[in-house]
Amino acid sequence: MNVDLYQEPLVSRYTSKEMQKLFSERTKFTLWRRCWLALAESFYELDLQDEDGKPIIKEEQIQELKDHLTDINFEEARKKEEEIRHDVMSHIYAYGKQCPNAAKIIHLGATSAFVTCNSELIQQREGLKIIKRRLLKVIKNLADFAIRYKGIVTLAYTHFQPAQPTTIGKRATLYIQDLLMDLEYLEFVLKMIKARGVKGTTGTQASFLELFHEDHEKVKKLDKLVSLKLGFDNAFDVTGQTYPRKLDTKIAEVLAGIATSSHKFGVDMRLASHLKIMEEPFEKAQVGSSAMAYKRNPMRSERLTALSRLLIGKIINFYHTAANQWLERSLDDSAIRRIDIPQSFLLADAILILYNNITKNMIVYPKVVEKHLKEELPFMVTEAILMKAVERGKDRQQIHERIRIHSMEAAKRIKEEGKNNDLFERIANDPIIPIEMEELNKLITDPIVFAGRAKEQTEEYIHNIVEPTLLKYEDILKQEDEGKVRY
Amino acid sequence: MNVDLYQEPLVSRYTSKEMQKLFSERTKFTLWRRCWLALAESFYELDLQDEDGKPIIKEEQIQELKDHLTDINFEEARKKEEEIRHDVMSHIYAYGKQCPNAAKIIHLGATSAFVTCNSELIQQREGLKIIKRRLLKVIKNLADFAIRYKGIVTLAYTHFQPAQPTTIGKRATLYIQDLLMDLEYLEFVLKMIKARGVKGTTGTQASFLELFHEDHEKVKKLDKLVSLKLGFDNAFDVTGQTYPRKLDTKIAEVLAGIATSSHKFGVDMRLASHLKIMEEPFEKAQVGSSAMAYKRNPMRSERLTALSRLLIGKIINFYHTAANQWLERSLDDSAIRRIDIPQSFLLADAILILYNNITKNMIVYPKVVEKHLKEELPFMVTEAILMKAVERGKDRQQIHERIRIHSMEAAKRIKEEGKNNDLFERIANDPIIPIEMEELNKLITDPIVFAGRAKEQTEEYIHNIVEPTLLKYEDILKQEDEGKVRY
Amino acid sequence: MNVDLYQEPLVSRYTSKEMQKLFSERTKFTLWRRCWLALAESFYELDLQDEDGKPIIKEEQIQELKDHLTDINFEEARKKEEEIRHDVMSHIYAYGKQCPNAAKIIHLGATSAFVTCNSELIQQREGLKIIKRRLLKVIKNLADFAIRYKGIVTLAYTHFQPAQPTTIGKRATLYIQDLLMDLEYLEFVLKMIKARGVKGTTGTQASFLELFHEDHEKVKKLDKLVSLKLGFDNAFDVTGQTYPRKLDTKIAEVLAGIATSSHKFGVDMRLASHLKIMEEPFEKAQVGSSAMAYKRNPMRSERLTALSRLLIGKIINFYHTAANQWLERSLDDSAIRRIDIPQSFLLADAILILYNNITKNMIVYPKVVEKHLKEELPFMVTEAILMKAVERGKDRQQIHERIRIHSMEAAKRIKEEGKNNDLFERIANDPIIPIEMEELNKLITDPIVFAGRAKEQTEEYIHNIVEPTLLKYEDILKQEDEGKVRY
Amino acid sequence: MNVDLYQEPLVSRYTSKEMQKLFSERTKFTLWRRCWLALAESFYELDLQDEDGKPIIKEEQIQELKDHLTDINFEEARKKEEEIRHDVMSHIYAYGKQCPNAAKIIHLGATSAFVTCNSELIQQREGLKIIKRRLLKVIKNLADFAIRYKGIVTLAYTHFQPAQPTTIGKRATLYIQDLLMDLEYLEFVLKMIKARGVKGTTGTQASFLELFHEDHEKVKKLDKLVSLKLGFDNAFDVTGQTYPRKLDTKIAEVLAGIATSSHKFGVDMRLASHLKIMEEPFEKAQVGSSAMAYKRNPMRSERLTALSRLLIGKIINFYHTAANQWLERSLDDSAIRRIDIPQSFLLADAILILYNNITKNMIVYPKVVEKHLKEELPFMVTEAILMKAVERGKDRQQIHERIRIHSMEAAKRIKEEGKNNDLFERIANDPIIPIEMEELNKLITDPIVFAGRAKEQTEEYIHNIVEPTLLKYEDILKQEDEGKVRY
Repeated sequence: MNVDLYQEPLVSRYTSKEMQKLFSERTKFTLWRRCWLALAESFYELDLQDEDGKPIIKEEQIQELKDHLTDINFEEARKKEEEIRHDVMSHIYAYGKQCPNAAKIIHLGATSAFVTCNSELIQQREGLKIIKRRLLKVIKNLADFAIRYKGIVTLAYTHFQPAQPTTIGKRATLYIQDLLMDLEYLEFVLKMIKARGVKGTTGTQASFLELFHEDHEKVKKLDKLVSLKLGFDNAFDVTGQTYPRKLDTKIAEVLAGIATSSHKFGVDMRLASHLKIMEEPFEKAQVGSSAMAYKRNPMRSERLTALSRLLIGKIINFYHTAANQWLERSLDDSAIRRIDIPQSFLLADAILILYNNITKNMIVYPKVVEKHLKEELPFMVTEAILMKAVERGKDRQQIHERIRIHSMEAAKRIKEEGKNNDLFERIANDPIIPIEMEELNKLITDPIVFAGRAKEQTEEYIHNIVEPTLLKYEDILKQEDEGKVRY
Repeated sequence: MNVDLYQEPLVSRYTSKEMQKLFSERTKFTLWRRCWLALAESFYELDLQDEDGKPIIKEEQIQELKDHLTDINFEEARKKEEEIRHDVMSHIYAYGKQCPNAAKIIHLGATSAFVTCNSELIQQREGLKIIKRRLLKVIKNLADFAIRYKGIVTLAYTHFQPAQPTTIGKRATLYIQDLLMDLEYLEFVLKMIKARGVKGTTGTQASFLELFHEDHEKVKKLDKLVSLKLGFDNAFDVTGQTYPRKLDTKIAEVLAGIATSSHKFGVDMRLASHLKIMEEPFEKAQVGSSAMAYKRNPMRSERLTALSRLLIGKIINFYHTAANQWLERSLDDSAIRRIDIPQSFLLADAILILYNNITKNMIVYPKVVEKHLKEELPFMVTEAILMKAVERGKDRQQIHERIRIHSMEAAKRIKEEGKNNDLFERIANDPIIPIEMEELNKLITDPIVFAGRAKEQTEEYIHNIVEPTLLKYEDILKQEDEGKVRY
Repeated sequence: MNVDLYQEPLVSRYTSKEMQKLFSERTKFTLWRRCWLALAESFYELDLQDEDGKPIIKEEQIQELKDHLTDINFEEARKKEEEIRHDVMSHIYAYGKQCPNAAKIIHLGATSAFVTCNSELIQQREGLKIIKRRLLKVIKNLADFAIRYKGIVTLAYTHFQPAQPTTIGKRATLYIQDLLMDLEYLEFVLKMIKARGVKGTTGTQASFLELFHEDHEKVKKLDKLVSLKLGFDNAFDVTGQTYPRKLDTKIAEVLAGIATSSHKFGVDMRLASHLKIMEEPFEKAQVGSSAMAYKRNPMRSERLTALSRLLIGKIINFYHTAANQWLERSLDDSAIRRIDIPQSFLLADAILILYNNITKNMIVYPKVVEKHLKEELPFMVTEAILMKAVERGKDRQQIHERIRIHSMEAAKRIKEEGKNNDLFERIANDPIIPIEMEELNKLITDPIVFAGRAKEQTEEYIHNIVEPTLLKYEDILKQEDEGKVRY
Repeated sequence: MNVDLYQEPLVSRYTSKEMQKLFSERTKFTLWRRCWLALAESFYELDLQDEDGKPIIKEEQIQELKDHLTDINFEEARKKEEEIRHDVMSHIYAYGKQCPNAAKIIHLGATSAFVTCNSELIQQREGLKIIKRRLLKVIKNLADFAIRYKGIVTLAYTHFQPAQPTTIGKRATLYIQDLLMDLEYLEFVLKMIKARGVKGTTGTQASFLELFHEDHEKVKKLDKLVSLKLGFDNAFDVTGQTYPRKLDTKIAEVLAGIATSSHKFGVDMRLASHLKIMEEPFEKAQVGSSAMAYKRNPMRSERLTALSRLLIGKIINFYHTAANQWLERSLDDSAIRRIDIPQSFLLADAILILYNNITKNMIVYPKVVEKHLKEELPFMVTEAILMKAVERGKDRQQIHERIRIHSMEAAKRIKEEGKNNDLFERIANDPIIPIEMEELNKLITDPIVFAGRAKEQTEEYIHNIVEPTLLKYEDILKQEDEGKVRY
């Protein structure tokens, strides 16, 4: 690392080598060469002829291009670029130096956007696939967690105030549901990605029509063939100079969506850590503050929130870039896409690595869960108490009023005097209410009944919805070799 | 209109009554009643029984609820709300006043979110359908336009500088392609919309499980049945107190996407108006400035840009609201959704009304198109000239150098002396270049050849892609009765 | 309220009549008339003459304009606008109908932007003054609160985890400091606001130079004089057709800044409500949920958060509008400013009304504060315990290790077993540590010592910084008559 | 450059070494050491004593700290950090290794935020100073340009449609006025920047109060003294753990404001390039497209637009981070500030370098300016023609109607037939209008009269407003040694 100049923290701190490589110079220029090779091969297969009917592309040329697909002579290109200030032209030159026979047919009929657009589309397609893998891993972690804790009853919180109980596992299904929506949209957008194909300077394919001597069918086949060779099912039907920047907005939405889901989870974890009911994993070597040895800050979850906020903020740039493209193309997309596209993928990568890391070993403290529940449970069971009393012949209105008064007093005592909830004592000691402490305590012995269908919902959701999805992606999940990523 | 207090311009100026009605108080409270009716009917059909096995819901009660589905007693509800400050409770009370027998079973087992969430989902679903109609109408307009002008060759512009020609019609296909992406995503999201269903305070369905005496299957059926009655195929599998606010982000993305496409078109129209090659329609009564009678500002296109920018800006709010919901629900979504959801739909409505209005009668000035083309065409045909000269036995390098010099001189003359392009004169007068003015002029007689496949692409795109889509939506297009909307 | 069409919630629910009036049609058109009157008066004072040296403006005309400054004939204007579709022309016509003599000199030499820009500048200037009043009131509330609770020691929280104690009052000074930054910037921007003045169609003042027969000095005086009459110290030195939209961004920053400060406070209040250490005020009539009678949700603070998020989101629109104005002016600012400027002021109004409402009667529960503090205090005083033990002749390392072990055990017990903190018991019962329970309890009797300078900082900050500011604005604070605003 | 991993384009392409160094690891850790040194020196000067009244800090220790202020042993720190995972602790250790005597007093009583916050404040303060220099340079360029072209009359454009003329120089004053607003705000915010000072873990200064044996005055002096040593006039009066993140929003506003001004200029340049009236400078070596040798795309202005959009988009992150800080501090600010603060400064740096580069050598084509003006001028002088005719005894209404008809015909001919404006021919040939072609041509000989006070405004603005400002900053302007920056 160069300590004398600014270094991008996304690279130096948070992301996987896999994603960093995808957006490296090496990958970019290798993809350009793949585009040029695909073009030459397609010309060859479509039998491009000169005015005398002789084939323009020779087999040896193609072999030469193949031989030098990956051994990029960066220095050669860099020196040329300093001279002529045109990156595509410089790399044509450098490739040509390595392929003396093919030099003259590299980039034949093409424009810069042919290599830049198609390469960027491949990078984003492959980037989404990496993201998909990471996403599935997190879903898997959360599904395991949900099942494990499906029956641990906890206070639910609305307005961050105690509310009708749920279970720890059920809460986790909500995070999964968000991520499954992200996955579904990711798949939708993956299918939306087409090649920019072979379209010429302003999208009219004029140069190719000329090269094929006005043979429209051959031009259409060329477009299709090159796209297939680059791994796309289709090319965009029509384009200006570039593929529509609107597609970038859809990809950015996928990533911002993942950030939104992750942010919600991150904030919840920070609240849960405060409650001491759940904690992110801590590494053995990790030490807390030297002053407060017991302190365990939810640093990963906070970082998850921070990076998610950053990724969410990027979306607006993509919209405005697409919305402000003038006519067949303006270049106010270049510098901003050059930065925002890789950074968005790197951020999503960092976020999912963190999310995976946290969910893999989340700790639950059932005793604390139970303690919180107990403190508030009395308020929640007052309705059941009323039922019992009525069954025992008491007047509903009278009992209701007694309970109301006791509740108010208990709440006041807690907040104004800082004491524990003594509602049960009050009720048990009230001669009018025909219920003893023993029975009251029994009433809350099995708090699962207050959690309604939380446990069953968790089971049903995991078995009916999540497991089939994970099964479908089994192979991809296996590829997510965690050894490859840095945490 | 109340002139003494601020009035929302979206309502007073830009949007359709249809969309305004959808987000009115009347629609909202009528939908709440539909939710309560659906709940009562479903209980009835599932044979909800009291502890003695007697049916809880009576047929007369359901009939009463039906009878008062739409005659909302606003005053009654308003007075109650002033007293108890709870809108749902006030409307339960007001409905109950009209349905004395059913009063006690309205809202049985339910929470506020049962009516608010399900109603908002219906409003958004119906809102998207209105938007879909408007979108299709614009696509239709543009398709007609593209076919009409498929062969009108025009300069293309990259960097807003003249580039290889295209056609007016071909350019229009780019706008259509953007809108078809919006349509595709709209359909995808429409399918994502599910009912919030019958889930209880924190999503556990506890109260309903109690009502059905622990019969899980009946609770599941209730959830499904109510959802079907409200026009949904499904309910969300799991929820907290509310449906996941993440869904709002997807709907907002659809609308922001439409804004992005519309903004790009609006800016292009403003550039085209400057070029005097195209104009938005002008109404007969419309007068320009009193000072400059000839002035025709592209005011609609500018407004389209303005409203689109506003709609694009809303997306970030939706993301942050979803990202910041705490645990089972926090109320920091309420005031912002109450404003941003209706306004987003109203904005999309306003935008598509404008877009429709502009595209319905766009004017093209072929003579101006041709003039611009002619001014720049000489530069663009220099390559062809070179070919001809070489065919006539001249030395390629010598001719290339002559052309280069003439080009430079011509460009300099235009910019430094403000004169017309005299490149052809220079070439024709050059004894070394074996081409006469007559031939040069002939060379540019049929500029369609410089536009490559633009015309064919337009035909293919409209016939193969757009027309089948329009056919599929034929019925919806017919519904888009323009008489209903204010322009 | 019209129940059949969408109604803006900002108006129907959250804002003051005062702010609603400022952005009403009546205010707008009255301001237009003030602009026209100021122009006529200034012409008169500068002795505008026709080509024969006779005065163009008569005293009677000015009197007529004055007589009809506020009795706007809306219907007349509305009918005209339907015909000619130009709002400024319609209001010139309507004003002229009421002022038959002055009719011909209304708007003399002026353009629409003369009335629209200057009026909008006045509205924003006056809007900022209302906001300033509200802001000062909140600062006053918080200052009173800070002094009242300057000595109430509470756990501070970093990472929402217990940290070194502070005081309730000290925490409040942080909110004040944020608001004082907002106030300081508000004053800065108020001074930045200048009149658009009298600049003509494209800012060159050409028509006025003609009217004054090439007398440059008179044109400059006219610009200055009209600006003074409209309550501005200066006019912008140069303009295009409109005043620079960049100014709008600065005003929007002031409002977004207030939203940012308010959001932070709102979130803190929601966390404090969860902790039960503080609560927003509850109205007597206000009832909680019928199911959970004790529940007190921090609804105002949540709404504060929601509205602040909405206001923060608006900033980006203002930047993009300013950034995208083309050359001397483009109209893509019109529809967006028409909506976003009033809404931003209404939002800031709503936010400060809420913030005032909450801070006026915030409740603190010192007993709960103390309880939380006590639960965590043992961890925080371990260092002091170590000191004491060493003083009593014990080996530092041995005692440190004992304390470390006890701390770990206590923390584990809390989280894994859900029990209270028993660190003191452990220490008191440890024969090696020479400290009894009595002394330990004494050690935490006066927890103010753990809060360092929190109390003194609060006193110093309020007395040295806040009070002088409030004194300076005493008159403005008195004007903030709360009777006028709806909560 | 590492070609195998992603490289930040801001560093590799667009920014100055000066700004990259400011945000390097070396600068950061050197600043940390400056903080530690300032703390030790201040303790020494305030005579910090142990319990026996002996000085705690020795002169040799301070000398040692000074001796190793800049020779950071990165490797030592890095290895330590790998072990204990705490960057501040690792650098305390590494510094201590170089300063064996001072080791024990480094960081005495301080928290991590002491070094991180104060260092970041210094970086931002110095960053703003660099930006100020760059800004002044651009203002200087534009002022020179404005004076040079103050009298070159050009069409103004509203709605990007021809409007009443202005001058090239006058238009440039609008850009300057925007930048002067930026400069004014930058100065305002520079003054707002205070030290975070010496505040302790949660802002209470508890540890320092202890160190100074409850001497409040000494703690206050310590805070002040350290701040002065770090180059600040003051420290924040109160803080939580960190300085208020609200300050970051004000700094971000300054930078986003510069982006807004620059974006507007960039778009105008792109429109002006299209009109061929102005061009950004081209380097000698720079070649256009190989296909279209004459093409000169406004690439720098487009890049300026792109980078400005990116910088504008960052503002919302800063607001949300400040708005979401919980209580005394939460760590969801860390990763996002680590990325967004440096990137915002780097972007502003890149933008102003480009803006400077463009304005230094902007090219104007007066002949093209004149040509456009001439094409539209006839429409604009019709009012003057009317005056003349009336003076010559003709009936005003008759002549007005003749002119109106001719105008309509001329406009139609231009747009529908693509021909030149022949309004003058029509008027000259009309026997009823008593004006000959010669006189008409004379009327437009000196178009400066149509530009009103544009020239005088330019002179006045530059002399009265801009020059005094530049004079005031003369020294700073000289420092802007362009040799240091890469373009």
